[in-house]
Amino acid sequence: MSVVAAAGFTANGVACGIKASGDLDLSLVATMAGAPVSAAAVFTQNKMTAAPVVTTNAHLTLTGGRAAAVILNSGCANAGTGQQGLTDARAMCAQVADHLGCAPNEVLVCSTGLIGYELPMAAITGGVEALVAGRTADPRGAVAAAEAIRTTDTHRKETVVRGTDFVVGGMAKGAAMLAPDMATMLVVLTTDAAVAPEALTTVLRAAVAESFNAMSSDGCTSTNDTVILLASGEAGPPGDLAAFRAAVADACLDLASQMVGDAEGHTKVVTVRVTGALSDDDARAGARKVAESQLVKCSWYGKDPYWGRVASELGSAGIAFEADKLAVRYGDIVMAEHGVTIDTDPTAIAAYMDREHIEVTAHLGLGDGTARILTNDLTHAYVDENMGTS
Amino acid sequence: MSVVAAAGFTANGVACGIKASGDLDLSLVATMAGAPVSAAAVFTQNKMTAAPVVTTNAHLTLTGGRAAAVILNSGCANAGTGQQGLTDARAMCAQVADHLGCAPNEVLVCSTGLIGYELPMAAITGGVEALVAGRTADPRGAVAAAEAIRTTDTHRKETVVRGTDFVVGGMAKGAAMLAPDMATMLVVLTTDAAVAPEALTTVLRAAVAESFNAMSSDGCTSTNDTVILLASGEAGPPGDLAAFRAAVADACLDLASQMVGDAEGHTKVVTVRVTGALSDDDARAGARKVAESQLVKCSWYGKDPYWGRVASELGSAGIAFEADKLAVRYGDIVMAEHGVTIDTDPTAIAAYMDREHIEVTAHLGLGDGTARILTNDLTHAYVDENMGTS
Repeated sequence: MSVVAAAGFTANGVACGIKASGDLDLSLVATMAGAPVSAAAVFTQNKMTAAPVVTTNAHLTLTGGRAAAVILNSGCANAGTGQQGLTDARAMCAQVADHLGCAPNEVLVCSTGLIGYELPMAAITGGVEALVAGRTADPRGAVAAAEAIRTTDTHRKETVVRGTDFVVGGMAKGAAMLAPDMATMLVVLTTDAAVAPEALTTVLRAAVAESFNAMSSDGCTSTNDTVILLASGEAGPPGDLAAFRAAVADACLDLASQMVGDAEGHTKVVTVRVTGALSDDDARAGARKVAESQLVKCSWYGKDPYWGRVASELGSAGIAFEADKLAVRYGDIVMAEHGVTIDTDPTAIAAYMDREHIEVTAHLGLGDGTARILTNDLTHAYVDENMGTS
Repeated sequence: MSVVAAAGFTANGVACGIKASGDLDLSLVATMAGAPVSAAAVFTQNKMTAAPVVTTNAHLTLTGGRAAAVILNSGCANAGTGQQGLTDARAMCAQVADHLGCAPNEVLVCSTGLIGYELPMAAITGGVEALVAGRTADPRGAVAAAEAIRTTDTHRKETVVRGTDFVVGGMAKGAAMLAPDMATMLVVLTTDAAVAPEALTTVLRAAVAESFNAMSSDGCTSTNDTVILLASGEAGPPGDLAAFRAAVADACLDLASQMVGDAEGHTKVVTVRVTGALSDDDARAGARKVAESQLVKCSWYGKDPYWGRVASELGSAGIAFEADKLAVRYGDIVMAEHGVTIDTDPTAIAAYMDREHIEVTAHLGLGDGTARILTNDLTHAYVDENMGTS
């Protein structure tokens, strides 16, 4: 179901030849009628911005937040491609518009793959007609669309959240921003709720902040990260806007969890929680420092509950910190209190560290600030998968 | 030679039983006469500060920058040990003072090892008398002292820099702050130049900024990092203070290079250079972001000159950045210019990436800011060595 679960949408995926393997590599989500609907997007903050990000952003600005379709390709990021990259991204939009019968500016575009290589436009041009012609509201179209954006993902990622008077569906590509060839997260969400572009943007930004921006595998952010939400309006305005917000946030969190769970080479999914910080900002900075520490991530891989490393990262996170107020827990097992080691039952802690999903909580004892970040361990397999581009 | 190369100093190292292996684990650098001389220190910025750091800092404050000796131990960091840790660190100083005949405040202390464990004080107390009694200006004392602070270092680290009218010597412990059990850098420098404490501190701070603070292996800073400089004054005031500054900086840079070259599990030493930044601060932030990127570090391990990852890190470093002004070189081989890929000779770049020491230069094309950071690649062996504390 996913991107076609909400009324008014079609999808499709084809193999146009970008991937040498012959796998699906060109993906489409479009409105049923080919007419534009309310649209919002959130992009990577990376200043090394890929051409499709520049193009999608420009199109949404030009249309005032309306779009009829999103075309996505895997196998090439169209980043580090200069003026030619922009020309190619615009051409992809224009070709979809031709076949769909909308304006080129009403088509958005996303790419994922290697940086520094131009798109194989002949292959893409050859595939667009079949991509648009074959689009369908049947679930098979959504499956093909979600498959066609996979890169190092071990499985496709989809979600559906149903409200009382609306549906939110979505698909995603991303292995926790860890991919060797394509460190990118792409998400397309659809809904049948009628929400104007400005309100839709507010809802999407809040949802992204609580989900995709609260996960970190290696701290690397991509040139191409894009989250798009299209609203067909077929179900009318949501009776409860807060419920709609919550549904979009749930859809994003579900997809984010799937990404972290699919991170390359991981053996553990780890929730890092910081509580008792002077502010939420401090808590976030502390949690991120711990989540991105190579030393801490290796200790998780080794099932080692060494609290000293967590403490050392918090102490150098640039936040308010007092060693003698720190407490650290793995799950419910207290490893340190008032900044000193607490004796623990070795059997209990070993059993806990053996789990696939573990939680480490650092309580700073300074205030009410809290934050939570989802992340992974650092493993031999991660090194293997990121040693080369080929 | 190292810490006894400058006139007026003795050293020693003994095995007191902190390390189960029976290796040397207690180290001393002391003035010949046991009387205090001019002293300066630079410490970790980590707020999870170890007891010996607190103690050494307090002693230098109380004496106005004078010290007769430094006692150092490996095998236990005495961090995360609360009030007991401070009591133990002070006891180490008092015991050395007893045997040396100086005041307890005139002794400085450093520890390196696991966080969260109290010092085995019985072992240390049992070793101090022999440590002080056996101190000598013979080079064998300096060798023993340098050996006794090793942890995961594969070899001891010493340096001597000779000026026209002074000598600077030193020893260090540290595998680029990467150690699994003891992510710590300890450095003791000695000189026979007569320089007052305040000027000595200025000289040391500048030297540290250009050396130890310009290297990064995994971005983790320790709870115990300490650099101490003792000046016996036996050679009188240096005729050329600038030459003295340069000599201290050279000694620090030499020890820093030895640390990066000895980083655990590395296969490459990498110099990351950022030029053409809007400011030196921007250049430093950009170089550090690249040097600490897990993705980039894995690519070096895989001998992959993928410039897109370098660009992506610079774009998300929070500095002024324009993709179409970026150029990236490996050695002299230009990989990208104006933000797009430049065709290179595959044989030449493969030969370059095969070297043990490689340089990557990113020119931002925005101003005159430059910076340089020494770092390593991320390898299977790094993961192995950091998986556990035991």
